[in-house]
Amino acid sequence: MDDSGQEPSGGRRGRGERGGANARRAARSGGGPGTQLTYIKRAINVYEVLNEEGLALIEKNADTVLEEIGIEFREDEEALALWKAAGADVRGERVHFPKGMCRELLKTAPSIYTQHARNPERSVQIGGNATVFAPVYGPPFVRDLDGVRRYATIEDFRNFVKLSYMAPSIHHSGGTVCEPVDVPVNKRHLDMVYSHIKYSDKPFMGSVTAPERAEDTVAMCKILFGDDFVDQNTVLTSLINANSPMVFDGTMLGALKVYARNNQACIVTPFILAGAMSPVTVAGTLTQVLAEVLAGAALTQLIRPGAPVLFGTFASSISMQSGAPTFGTPEPSLVSYGAAQLARRLGLPFRTGGSLCGSKVPDAQAAYESASTLNSTVLAGTNFVLHAAGWLEGGLASCYEKFMMDIDQLGMQQKFAQGVDLSENGQAMDAIREVGPGSHYLGCSHTQANFQTAFYRSAIADNNSYEQWLAEGEKRAEARANEMARRWLETYEAPYLDPAIDEALVDFVAQKKNSMPDAFT
Amino acid sequence: MDDSGQEPSGGRRGRGERGGANARRAARSGGGPGTQLTYIKRAINVYEVLNEEGLALIEKNADTVLEEIGIEFREDEEALALWKAAGADVRGERVHFPKGMCRELLKTAPSIYTQHARNPERSVQIGGNATVFAPVYGPPFVRDLDGVRRYATIEDFRNFVKLSYMAPSIHHSGGTVCEPVDVPVNKRHLDMVYSHIKYSDKPFMGSVTAPERAEDTVAMCKILFGDDFVDQNTVLTSLINANSPMVFDGTMLGALKVYARNNQACIVTPFILAGAMSPVTVAGTLTQVLAEVLAGAALTQLIRPGAPVLFGTFASSISMQSGAPTFGTPEPSLVSYGAAQLARRLGLPFRTGGSLCGSKVPDAQAAYESASTLNSTVLAGTNFVLHAAGWLEGGLASCYEKFMMDIDQLGMQQKFAQGVDLSENGQAMDAIREVGPGSHYLGCSHTQANFQTAFYRSAIADNNSYEQWLAEGEKRAEARANEMARRWLETYEAPYLDPAIDEALVDFVAQKKNSMPDAFT
Repeated sequence: MDDSGQEPSGGRRGRGERGGANARRAARSGGGPGTQLTYIKRAINVYEVLNEEGLALIEKNADTVLEEIGIEFREDEEALALWKAAGADVRGERVHFPKGMCRELLKTAPSIYTQHARNPERSVQIGGNATVFAPVYGPPFVRDLDGVRRYATIEDFRNFVKLSYMAPSIHHSGGTVCEPVDVPVNKRHLDMVYSHIKYSDKPFMGSVTAPERAEDTVAMCKILFGDDFVDQNTVLTSLINANSPMVFDGTMLGALKVYARNNQACIVTPFILAGAMSPVTVAGTLTQVLAEVLAGAALTQLIRPGAPVLFGTFASSISMQSGAPTFGTPEPSLVSYGAAQLARRLGLPFRTGGSLCGSKVPDAQAAYESASTLNSTVLAGTNFVLHAAGWLEGGLASCYEKFMMDIDQLGMQQKFAQGVDLSENGQAMDAIREVGPGSHYLGCSHTQANFQTAFYRSAIADNNSYEQWLAEGEKRAEARANEMARRWLETYEAPYLDPAIDEALVDFVAQKKNSMPDAFT
Repeated sequence: MDDSGQEPSGGRRGRGERGGANARRAARSGGGPGTQLTYIKRAINVYEVLNEEGLALIEKNADTVLEEIGIEFREDEEALALWKAAGADVRGERVHFPKGMCRELLKTAPSIYTQHARNPERSVQIGGNATVFAPVYGPPFVRDLDGVRRYATIEDFRNFVKLSYMAPSIHHSGGTVCEPVDVPVNKRHLDMVYSHIKYSDKPFMGSVTAPERAEDTVAMCKILFGDDFVDQNTVLTSLINANSPMVFDGTMLGALKVYARNNQACIVTPFILAGAMSPVTVAGTLTQVLAEVLAGAALTQLIRPGAPVLFGTFASSISMQSGAPTFGTPEPSLVSYGAAQLARRLGLPFRTGGSLCGSKVPDAQAAYESASTLNSTVLAGTNFVLHAAGWLEGGLASCYEKFMMDIDQLGMQQKFAQGVDLSENGQAMDAIREVGPGSHYLGCSHTQANFQTAFYRSAIADNNSYEQWLAEGEKRAEARANEMARRWLETYEAPYLDPAIDEALVDFVAQKKNSMPDAFT
C-alpha cells in the first residue's frame, strides 16, 4: 500500500484503537457499524458500451475540439504562459492544442497512486482495479433526523464525517460533505479540514474555493503528516470542476495549481448537465468531456510532472420540461461507462457517479435513481466515487437517512466486486452430494461452515414476515435508517489523534481565523 | 417476426385500433401511457462474471451431479419411461444421466423463437438479442390503491392485465399476475386465460397447476388462433418450476408434457432460495441450477423435438437469521449473470430476475432491491423477464404503485439497451462548434432538433425544485404512481376482439365451469 516506504507522522500514532474497540463493541451488541473494509479491489469485469471504433472516433473528435475550437483558461496568466511555453496556440484566453499534445503531456501522470490517511490502514489505492467510496460533496442544505430540510451547519458537517468514519463501506472521508453555512465562507475550509482530521482517520479532500484555501489545506496536512511526507506523497485528492463547456475559471485553476505543485491529486471533472453544458447526445457529451479533461489534466503535468490527476466525469441530463437535472436515467449511465473506457485508454484513474438522485425525500424515486447510478458507476470500473452516500435532491441536500441506506448498498457492491468463488468450498460439490434430491441445505455441514459470510447481510432491509413487520410498527426503510443514524451518532468515539498535532492544528486554525474578517458571501 | 408465414386468426382482426387511438389521445393529454414499444433488441454488450475456465468447471460439476446423484422425476411414469427409452439409468424415480446426454437432446431446441400474440404487432422474439418484459407472477395478495393489503380478486387480476396492456415497456401480458382468490381454484385458470385474451392483445402464459388446466389453456388458444396455427407456432410460454433440489414433481411434469406436446414453450426454472434449495455459494448454486435445467429442459425434447424451452433461474438467498428470502443482494446477481452465460453456451433462451424485492411497501428498500435486480437482469442479457413490474413483499403481493414505478424503470432499461448513437447526429460536432466555450446548448439547433428523443422522460420522477414540490403537496413517488394507476384504469379501453371468437371463448369457459364442482383448495 505505502509506495514510499515512509509513514505519515500523524498516522503512526493514530490507528484509532479506541474507535476500533468501540466499533467492535457496538457490532457485537447488534447496533454498530461492524468491521471496517479496505477499499475495493475489483475481481470482476468492467462493463463497456463502446467498441474500438467508437472509442477511436470520440478520441479523434476530441482532438478536433482541442485543436480547432480550443479551451478557455480564464483569469490565469500563469496557465496561459505555461501553455504557450509548451507549444500551444494561445489566442487571448483561448488555448488551441496541437494534435496529441495533451496526451503526450499526460504520460507523466500515474495511472495508480496511493492517497495516504493518517491511519495507514485507511490509506487507499486510487486507480487500477481499486474502487474507493467517498460521501456526498457540496450540498448547502441537509434533510435532518427530524425530517426538516434546512441550511447545513458545522455540526451537520461533523456528523457526516463521523458517520463516514464509522461506515465500513465508506473508504474516504470526502470533502464538503455539506456546506457549514453557519461558518463565515472565508473561514469555512479551516473548520472543514480540521473536522476531517479530528473526527476521522480516513483520507480526505482539500478546499478548492480559492487558492489560499488550498494552501491552508496543504499547510494543515503538513502539520498532520510532516512536510517531507506531504511533498513526497499524496495525502489529498481534490475536486477541480471544469466550467463546461470548454472553460476553466481562475478559482479552479488557482486551486489546481496549488495541489499539483504540492504533488497532491486533482480530479479534473467537467460538471455536465447534458443539453445545457454539453450536447444532448451521449457521443457528443463524451467528446466534449474528453477534450476538457485532456486540457485540464495536462495542465497539472506542466506544473509538476508526475502529480496525480484523475479523469472525472459528472454526468446528468437536464429535464427538457423544467430545466432541472435528472439522475438515474439511461443517458448518464452510458456517459459514465463510455468515459471510464476513455480514461482507461488514457491511463488515468477515473471518477464518476455515486448514489445520485433528484428526489426531495429518501423515497422509492431516490432509491431507484441512486441504485441505477451506483450500479453503472461500479460496473464501469470507476476508481473514485464521490457522492457514494447521502446525496439527495440533485445534490442540494445531504440526507442522514439516505446516507445510511446508501452505505448499505455500497456494502453490497463491495461484496459483488469479489466475483464468484470457484474454490473447492465455493463449488460445494460435497454439499450437493450430502443433501441430494428432495431435501434441503439449511442444516448441512457446508451451510453451517459458510453461513456467516455466504450472503451479504443488510442492516436496513426488512425481510421478516408481513405480520412481524406489522407488529414492529410498519416501519419504512427510511425510519429504520433514521434509528440507525441516531444510534451511530450516540455511540461515536473519535479516533486517537496525537494531542501535540491536534493542538498545532487548533492553533493554526485560530491564527488564520483571527487574521481575517468574517465574510458570508 | 412471423417465422411461419402464417397469421393467427384472432390476430388478423385484432390489431387493437381503438385501444391504440385511445392511448394516443391519453398520451397527448399528458396522462396516458404513450406509444407501445416492441420487445427490446439489445444493441449493448452482456456482462459476464465467469471466464472460460469457470464455465467449464461448473459444466463439468453439473455433469457429475446428473450422472452420480441424478434428478428425481416424481409421480410420472411416462417421464420415467421416456428417460429409460432414451438410455438413462432409471432407479425408482431417480434418473441418472450418461455424460452429455441432456446436452445432446437439447440440440433440437430452438435458441430463438417467436411467441405470437393475437395482435401480430405485439408478438415477441424470445432468445438471441431480444429481451421481453412480463409482469409479476403468482402473488396471493395485492397491495391495493387504498394502501390496503388483502387477498387478490379476479378484478385485481383484470386490472393488472389492463395496466400491462397499456404499459409501453411491458411486452408480454404474463400469467398469474395475482391469484384471483375469489374464484374457485379449479376454475381460476379459465378466468385468468380469458382475461389475458379479452383485456390485452399481448402474448401470455398458460396454466401449470394441473395437466388438465394446461389442456384447457391450449384449447382456448386454439379457439383464438385456430388449431393449425397453434400446432405449428408458439402462442404460449409457461412457467415450469423445478422442486429444488433435484426434483421435478408430477404437477409440473404434467403441465410440461402438455405444453411440449403442443409445441408450446416451457420455462424450466429451478426456484432457488440459496442456502435452502441450493448450496450457500454462487458456484454451487449454478452447478445445481444447470443440472436441473439440463434434465428438465431435455425432457421437453423427448416429448416433442423442437418444442421451445427456456433456461430459467429464479435466484434469491435466504436470510440466515429469519429464513426469509432476500432480494437485490450481491449473490443472486452473480447467480443471474453466471446462469445467463451457461444458457448462452447451451443455446437456450434465458429467463431470470425481474424487479424483485422483499419490502412490504413501495419504499426505498423496494426500489433499491428492484433496481439492483433489474440492472443485473438486463445486463446479463436475459431474454424473458418475469416479475418485471409490480412485485412486492418477496412475491407475496402484487402492488399497483410498485407496478407503475417499475414500468418507468423498464422504459429506462429499454432506452439504455439502444447503446450509444455514433451517427453524425450523435457525434454532435456541429453543436460543439456552434456553441463554443462559455456558452450553453439549451437553444442551439442540434438541441432543438433532438430534445424530444434525446433523454428518457420519466413519468414518475419529480425533478422540479424543492419549492415547487412543496407547493404540489410534497408527494412521494408512490403517491404519484397511485394517481397514475387510477388515471390509466379510468381511461382503459379493451382492444378489439372478434365477437365470434369472444363468444366461443365465453361458451368454452361456461361449459368447463359447469362441468366441475367449486373447489377452493
